[in-house]
Amino acid sequence: MSASAPSGGTGKPVLIYDASLRDGHHAVRHQLGRDQLRAYAEAADAAGIPMVEVGHGNGLGASSLQVGQARLSDDEMLSIVRESLRDSAMAVFMLPGWGTTADLRRAIAHEADVVRIGTHCTEGDLAERHLGFLREQGVQAQAVLLMSHMTSAERLAHECARLVEFGANAVGIMDSSGHYLPADVTERIGAMRAAVEVPVMFHAHNNLGMAVANSIAAVEAGADILDACARGFGAGAGNTQLEVLVPVLERMGFSTGIDLYGLLDAADLAERTLMPAPPTIDSVSVVSGLAGVFSGFKTRVLDIARREDVDPRDVFFELGKRQAVAGQEDLIVEVALALKAARSA
Amino acid sequence: MSASAPSGGTGKPVLIYDASLRDGHHAVRHQLGRDQLRAYAEAADAAGIPMVEVGHGNGLGASSLQVGQARLSDDEMLSIVRESLRDSAMAVFMLPGWGTTADLRRAIAHEADVVRIGTHCTEGDLAERHLGFLREQGVQAQAVLLMSHMTSAERLAHECARLVEFGANAVGIMDSSGHYLPADVTERIGAMRAAVEVPVMFHAHNNLGMAVANSIAAVEAGADILDACARGFGAGAGNTQLEVLVPVLERMGFSTGIDLYGLLDAADLAERTLMPAPPTIDSVSVVSGLAGVFSGFKTRVLDIARREDVDPRDVFFELGKRQAVAGQEDLIVEVALALKAARSA
Repeated sequence: MSASAPSGGTGKPVLIYDASLRDGHHAVRHQLGRDQLRAYAEAADAAGIPMVEVGHGNGLGASSLQVGQARLSDDEMLSIVRESLRDSAMAVFMLPGWGTTADLRRAIAHEADVVRIGTHCTEGDLAERHLGFLREQGVQAQAVLLMSHMTSAERLAHECARLVEFGANAVGIMDSSGHYLPADVTERIGAMRAAVEVPVMFHAHNNLGMAVANSIAAVEAGADILDACARGFGAGAGNTQLEVLVPVLERMGFSTGIDLYGLLDAADLAERTLMPAPPTIDSVSVVSGLAGVFSGFKTRVLDIARREDVDPRDVFFELGKRQAVAGQEDLIVEVALALKAARSA
Repeated sequence: MSASAPSGGTGKPVLIYDASLRDGHHAVRHQLGRDQLRAYAEAADAAGIPMVEVGHGNGLGASSLQVGQARLSDDEMLSIVRESLRDSAMAVFMLPGWGTTADLRRAIAHEADVVRIGTHCTEGDLAERHLGFLREQGVQAQAVLLMSHMTSAERLAHECARLVEFGANAVGIMDSSGHYLPADVTERIGAMRAAVEVPVMFHAHNNLGMAVANSIAAVEAGADILDACARGFGAGAGNTQLEVLVPVLERMGFSTGIDLYGLLDAADLAERTLMPAPPTIDSVSVVSGLAGVFSGFKTRVLDIARREDVDPRDVFFELGKRQAVAGQEDLIVEVALALKAARSA
């Protein structure tokens, strides 16, 4: 850091969780290779980013024909990143169902410092066994609720309290569809903050151009941990842009402990070496964010809408009304056919 | 608009001013051609966007070797867009010095509905003669203060009151460096709102990922007119993304009168036909936004920093400390040499 650069904040610490090498993986069909992982992990470590997550986009054990086979195995990814980090903690993500206790054992063998278990927003109970196992093993366990706009602040707070009982050392929510506006975040994080004593985290997507503003709303409402990715690396409209979020936090007086120039260097490296191009907000991203639909539906919605000659935007809004979640891809065909029938009626 | 899409807001009207064909022009060195202008203007008109601005990035009369020669003359640009608009108002921009009263006469002859005069934030007096002329001619005249982060809310309010005395029918500010966070906007727009009776406008840039959030802060503080560009089309990190801003406003209950699907179609057309790629926030954009430096300095800063072997980020931060404004390009060399000398001292 140079003497010319602005000095950072000295106020409330905010812990930055860098999801570039895990959530970013979705944008490149899980095809990151050894040199890419190593170079970015070293750059993130040099910048002082406290937590670096790595893995298949869908987490431990998820590499498969169904959601995409990663170029590297979990063992390869974890060993490369472990070797590359000196000060940063290594984090992994797991969705019960894709990953199992065997995967957790493997991650622990690779000395993962943080294990994050994700479930649908109303299904925190699915994390109970894994959180219990991690507590026994003495590993830092975080629990995160996906597609969190689909339920109320009250229910999220209740789920978080349960997750803490199961053993979570930190709890949080993902705005998986990029649907939130700042007031939505304030309400939800505020309720969660009131319900638990452990650190609270927030993970944004940028479909409505609000990822940074929503992340700021989260810390102002009491969140302690924010997820972000270099250049917003991620599927669709991408995640919160890490190297934008950090200096904004510092300017507002929060303290991240991250070196600004090191962070910008890491982001420049990420743009050059990890992604074909940084994410931008296209019209499909706007519509899926407004509709609150899982962005992973995009390709199939576009294909099916073309085949049935209906407007894909109508399909997204109808899927939103029907509260479609990942795994319900059959609904896309049903909605498209219903729209077609309604038009000819 | 389809029955499937969400219905719009019915609350306070917000007037959207589409600057794609003027401010976007900076991103393509003012090289838009006839077919590009015509197709986008028709799409904007079809979507019901109330005001469509056109011209060289620096406004009427600015096409020159110094800031770039436009592909088309002002006459050509205005006549093409005039023919293409049925319901939308045609707007033009002028910076006194680049443009003259003769340019205003020409714009009026082309039936421009709105003429916007821009000055540096503390130099509103430079707009007096032109605003007086427009008042005599009975043309809707707006006045806008550039680089507005460089002065206080109080001073901006004072300048706006003067601009109204000169004849402005609306007054506003540009966040030319993309430096603001929402609280900065709230303070400034609030002070301006209290100082004048005419509509107040706000124009954001996205260097800190805050363009949409800052625009929302502006309307919540009393702004009536928001500038935006399709896909954020503009130099550097770009402008407020039009097709993101509008549905966010509608979801918050504001009313824009714009058709969502038409708007998304116009933005898709813009991405396909106006720009090589939508803007993204690179590291230089973050630094110039933090430093509050005119983004037009970018190329020269990078060149001079390379030549003098200093960090361009240090150059930006030093230029920010010295309050550099457009036209002071000599300062870049001075700062680079000073940084070099300080290092070897």
